[in-house]
Amino acid sequence: MASGSAKTASGRFFEDFRLGERLRHATPRSVSEGDVSLYAAIFGPRFAVQSSNPFAAAIGYPRSPIDDLLAFHLVFGKTVADVSLNAIANLGYADCRFLKPVYPGDTLSASSEVIGLKENSNRQSGVVYVRSQGFNQQGDVVLDYIRWVIVKKRDPDAPAPAPAVPDLPQAVGIEALGAACPPIDRGGYELALAGSPHLWGDYEIGEKIDHVDGVTVEEAEHQIATRLFQNNAKVHFNLFSEAQGRFGRRLIYGGHVISLARSLSFNGLANAFAIAAINSGRHAAPLFAGDTVFAWSEVLARQELPGREDIGALRLRTVATKNRPCGDFPDRAGEGYDPAMILDLDYWALAVR
Amino acid sequence: MASGSAKTASGRFFEDFRLGERLRHATPRSVSEGDVSLYAAIFGPRFAVQSSNPFAAAIGYPRSPIDDLLAFHLVFGKTVADVSLNAIANLGYADCRFLKPVYPGDTLSASSEVIGLKENSNRQSGVVYVRSQGFNQQGDVVLDYIRWVIVKKRDPDAPAPAPAVPDLPQAVGIEALGAACPPIDRGGYELALAGSPHLWGDYEIGEKIDHVDGVTVEEAEHQIATRLFQNNAKVHFNLFSEAQGRFGRRLIYGGHVISLARSLSFNGLANAFAIAAINSGRHAAPLFAGDTVFAWSEVLARQELPGREDIGALRLRTVATKNRPCGDFPDRAGEGYDPAMILDLDYWALAVR
Amino acid sequence: MASGSAKTASGRFFEDFRLGERLRHATPRSVSEGDVSLYAAIFGPRFAVQSSNPFAAAIGYPRSPIDDLLAFHLVFGKTVADVSLNAIANLGYADCRFLKPVYPGDTLSASSEVIGLKENSNRQSGVVYVRSQGFNQQGDVVLDYIRWVIVKKRDPDAPAPAPAVPDLPQAVGIEALGAACPPIDRGGYELALAGSPHLWGDYEIGEKIDHVDGVTVEEAEHQIATRLFQNNAKVHFNLFSEAQGRFGRRLIYGGHVISLARSLSFNGLANAFAIAAINSGRHAAPLFAGDTVFAWSEVLARQELPGREDIGALRLRTVATKNRPCGDFPDRAGEGYDPAMILDLDYWALAVR
Repeated sequence: MASGSAKTASGRFFEDFRLGERLRHATPRSVSEGDVSLYAAIFGPRFAVQSSNPFAAAIGYPRSPIDDLLAFHLVFGKTVADVSLNAIANLGYADCRFLKPVYPGDTLSASSEVIGLKENSNRQSGVVYVRSQGFNQQGDVVLDYIRWVIVKKRDPDAPAPAPAVPDLPQAVGIEALGAACPPIDRGGYELALAGSPHLWGDYEIGEKIDHVDGVTVEEAEHQIATRLFQNNAKVHFNLFSEAQGRFGRRLIYGGHVISLARSLSFNGLANAFAIAAINSGRHAAPLFAGDTVFAWSEVLARQELPGREDIGALRLRTVATKNRPCGDFPDRAGEGYDPAMILDLDYWALAVR
Repeated sequence: MASGSAKTASGRFFEDFRLGERLRHATPRSVSEGDVSLYAAIFGPRFAVQSSNPFAAAIGYPRSPIDDLLAFHLVFGKTVADVSLNAIANLGYADCRFLKPVYPGDTLSASSEVIGLKENSNRQSGVVYVRSQGFNQQGDVVLDYIRWVIVKKRDPDAPAPAPAVPDLPQAVGIEALGAACPPIDRGGYELALAGSPHLWGDYEIGEKIDHVDGVTVEEAEHQIATRLFQNNAKVHFNLFSEAQGRFGRRLIYGGHVISLARSLSFNGLANAFAIAAINSGRHAAPLFAGDTVFAWSEVLARQELPGREDIGALRLRTVATKNRPCGDFPDRAGEGYDPAMILDLDYWALAVR
Repeated sequence: MASGSAKTASGRFFEDFRLGERLRHATPRSVSEGDVSLYAAIFGPRFAVQSSNPFAAAIGYPRSPIDDLLAFHLVFGKTVADVSLNAIANLGYADCRFLKPVYPGDTLSASSEVIGLKENSNRQSGVVYVRSQGFNQQGDVVLDYIRWVIVKKRDPDAPAPAPAVPDLPQAVGIEALGAACPPIDRGGYELALAGSPHLWGDYEIGEKIDHVDGVTVEEAEHQIATRLFQNNAKVHFNLFSEAQGRFGRRLIYGGHVISLARSLSFNGLANAFAIAAINSGRHAAPLFAGDTVFAWSEVLARQELPGREDIGALRLRTVATKNRPCGDFPDRAGEGYDPAMILDLDYWALAVR
């Protein structure tokens, strides 16, 4: 797996993956308050639980957990060098469950299991399915998700494994929701500080929420964030090579859009303070520096959680667009998407009741 | 107060404010060393007290307090969603007093009281005066200031309240200065480490100081800083809408200029290590990315503080310009300002004696 | 040494330096996890020792030390105001030794001794040689290096001191290597987590390694980093004056290139986890925002360290280029350099055996 130099890692190609293989990813990462500050400065979240230690302590956390998506990006970042350095496209996510809160001081590591392989008909590439897990320093799984990507073949003539495509759940079941959320003391949850009077029970199925604000992304911002996550995918950082590539410029990490959309969604979903699971996510189009991101959400389901009167789950679909406000809720159009759409994310959030 | 979606906050309009009303602002914020590092990286302060824990400890602080203006911006940021989301202009500040040092680990929250309301003659908008307070986790007031802004009316025909304009002090009195500064052990204050031999007594009334250096501001920098402060004013982040707006581009948060000017003022005022109060501040013109900020200061007054031999107060006027060095001290010109002027700040700093 | 204002420091000119003089630099700096996060976010290092506290603890450190180059930049930054504010060029480094690990919570201060002075024949400037030292809060020397720069004269007619040029070692001797590295418990050093199977003994003298990846630098990134280091050299920040200067734009701090090249070198040198010494460094050409940095390394020597079976030293030459991939190892060309070369760095790294 070397190119140019025998010591240089150039990433796995499709024929390097074996079904059932387990990859232990490099560079464990201690999470600090510095990471939390940078996450805040780049994405602008305003959820009180993650922002204020006393607020978090008043409702039952030992202190503020880090943003769920910061944990996701840190785990995801570790998988890149082994899974997607030679990826042509990131096809999707499924069955992503947040299982333990992560706190500053914790150390995250990651591994992935190859759960599916299917060569493409052109024999130039194939689809690799992995189940990735993030662990804290006690070895607890904090995050578990499936991702599938198209990975180039080094040699088109290399033999392909027998096709194996895993079953992908359409949505995470409710029994898997809420594991990362301690019992919430509703008496300690001050709505004025949280920023909205709207509780779980106030959301209606089918309700659409325009998150109104727009945020323009700069090259320095996405590079700083993506490096913070130790995500070394080449397309995000190298203008020299990307100038000659498909888009003529650096491509912004898809997770950047997810975090921006989630932060924008505070305006309308302030009490949906945690992400319990991601059912599916699709990057409908690429984002580039200079573009302005907007978002809207639809309530797909409102679900009680067994044994919990403190919180409930909201199944949300959050759509992000570029250079197009979302007051009229731009959406799928026929087989495809509104051309301004860049993200279609289906997830379970936890909201106070 | 909803638009587009019933759950989305779109900010208060002039007719939504009531005299005497108290607004408790959302999203308390725990301050961390990550915030301090980002503040340093964006603004470049070099005051030893805020930079070195041993230096601070040697003179009587438990450890380095955060920069006074970082505390200011964090408190200010919280007020935006409730006070100035629909503001047309930020008219001024007065009676701003720093009352307690803030340390990493503290949590800041904020509330504002409406102390004045006056509809403009065009009936399209009105001036809102608020007294805002920042609190730490013990409930102590760390910061107290008056701000007034022009806020749009939602409906020009909405009835206006009786005009009420508060008395604004021209300057903060000396009895209010120094509360946030512990007794300073001058023996522990090493001038070589602080960066200047010039003490409080060395400054003359009327003396002008050119801070020499210039610093160019990038879009990513001001966006990162303003989001760190959880300030969600739209004009700073949304190129898509601002491109069609008054300036055709994103407007930089006025507080960004104040922090840059204060950091530049280290060169000439290294021993004026804390801000005790802001008497008044005016943003004479907007700043945009790509502009280079310069600053100079004038000593307006030199004041002993009752019962304190360790420190004294300097009343300073710091002027910032864009794209114009300050060697010749550009200033007010007739009724207006030198066209390069962007800030006229009148404040009390504390300096070692 | 004042200009414009009597209180403003304008830096030392050549005739202000005295042989043997000791300069105590301003603004001690407590290092925090916020600094570590920002360093990671700007430069993208992925060495496990500096990234994970448990990884560091498993091999013998109390916790993750900060990146050696972060310590270097923080110490270097302090020297600028006294040594190189009026420098025309930074000529080189020598005899740079990393003597103690630095941890978050430590406070760094710095002093320099003038060890050489030599007026240039044009009498407009002279070369100043300083030995700079960085100290932690216990007064231990953490870093010691020689730097020499061309500094302008304020007055060409000012008398010059007798020329004195110090002996500069070609390379740091092996007896000075490894002081900052505790005994490493190889059993705790997990290669999968470190990111490479290649140990000290696997590197051959003369071996060349292309680090493959390229990273484009933005103005906001280098300004943020250079301010984090409290380096106030004017050329990095002031577009207004630099637009009229030699390059027509802001010049990126040379240390920025060193940190980028070191971070890129993870791909190929993942187990060379610490820098023990810098033998020499030369900035072959300037770097500007928008340029993409690439790097390659050559193994110059492989050295056992007396009494240590845990680690060995690799003498490496790391070359950085701009806008030119390094697959064919661009190098010196005759008397000069390949025009794409921007850095030629000769250093000792420590690698696990």
